[in-house]
Amino acid sequence: MALTNTAGYAVYHAGPMQEWTQRHAVQHPIAGEIRGKKWLKDELQLTGCETSVGVLPPGAGTPFLHSHKQNEELYLFLTGSGEMLLDGESVAIEAGSMVRVEPPVVRAWRNTSDEVMYYLVIQAKAGSLEQWTRTDGVIHEGIPWGNESENN
Amino acid sequence: MALTNTAGYAVYHAGPMQEWTQRHAVQHPIAGEIRGKKWLKDELQLTGCETSVGVLPPGAGTPFLHSHKQNEELYLFLTGSGEMLLDGESVAIEAGSMVRVEPPVVRAWRNTSDEVMYYLVIQAKAGSLEQWTRTDGVIHEGIPWGNESENN
Repeated sequence: MALTNTAGYAVYHAGPMQEWTQRHAVQHPIAGEIRGKKWLKDELQLTGCETSVGVLPPGAGTPFLHSHKQNEELYLFLTGSGEMLLDGESVAIEAGSMVRVEPPVVRAWRNTSDEVMYYLVIQAKAGSLEQWTRTDGVIHEGIPWGNESENN
Repeated sequence: MALTNTAGYAVYHAGPMQEWTQRHAVQHPIAGEIRGKKWLKDELQLTGCETSVGVLPPGAGTPFLHSHKQNEELYLFLTGSGEMLLDGESVAIEAGSMVRVEPPVVRAWRNTSDEVMYYLVIQAKAGSLEQWTRTDGVIHEGIPWGNESENN
């Protein structure tokens, strides 16, 4: 499904989130088959972060606890609500909750709502970001779309 | 809105994507006010990646072209459809399209659909990821939720 992978960019179509459960699955050594999960690093040849999409049906939670060695994780919960366990502390999450977790923190999360929980997890080496946005971005001259289109 | 920012984790509630336009805005030196845009690094004290949420109404596109100095970007388009311009090449995007862009590639994107386009942009230093997922993750003993909940 990776459309393009040139020297400059790569594209992967993971499908709308409502289709992730049917489109994606991985085999996990403890959890067995995890429906809806897809890691993107290999598809996209990412070199700065690993990112995955994930799905938890109503009432479901991660069946194991994990931490990391050197990677900071960012959890982006798009829908549903529930909780994260972070070193044994319960933290409420809802649609739009974004959670940074340092490597050694032991974590799990679950969806206690009646909706499907769609979420993303990004992992990047803690401390690796040196500059960002306006210090790393470069604006170029030219108008990409002509006059028919504008941001608002 | 940052709920917690301890040594181990931080939480920010950005709201459900349907509320991003009303909740968030930034001032951009060229584009002026960009509704729906929110950078998360400062709120979450991210150290491995910068991440932002963004919104493009039907027919809207980024009004400028940009590239990066050292950061790889990952674009995650959650809804809507349209195109990215990547070094002048048009690449079709749809709900679920995920696009890795190397730092020097000049880019812009637009929503040509009738739906609102919600998306995320992650930037991390190109080449900084050393290990990931099963090489960086550590499974811990114990069951987080007891028997009432399981992943599927």
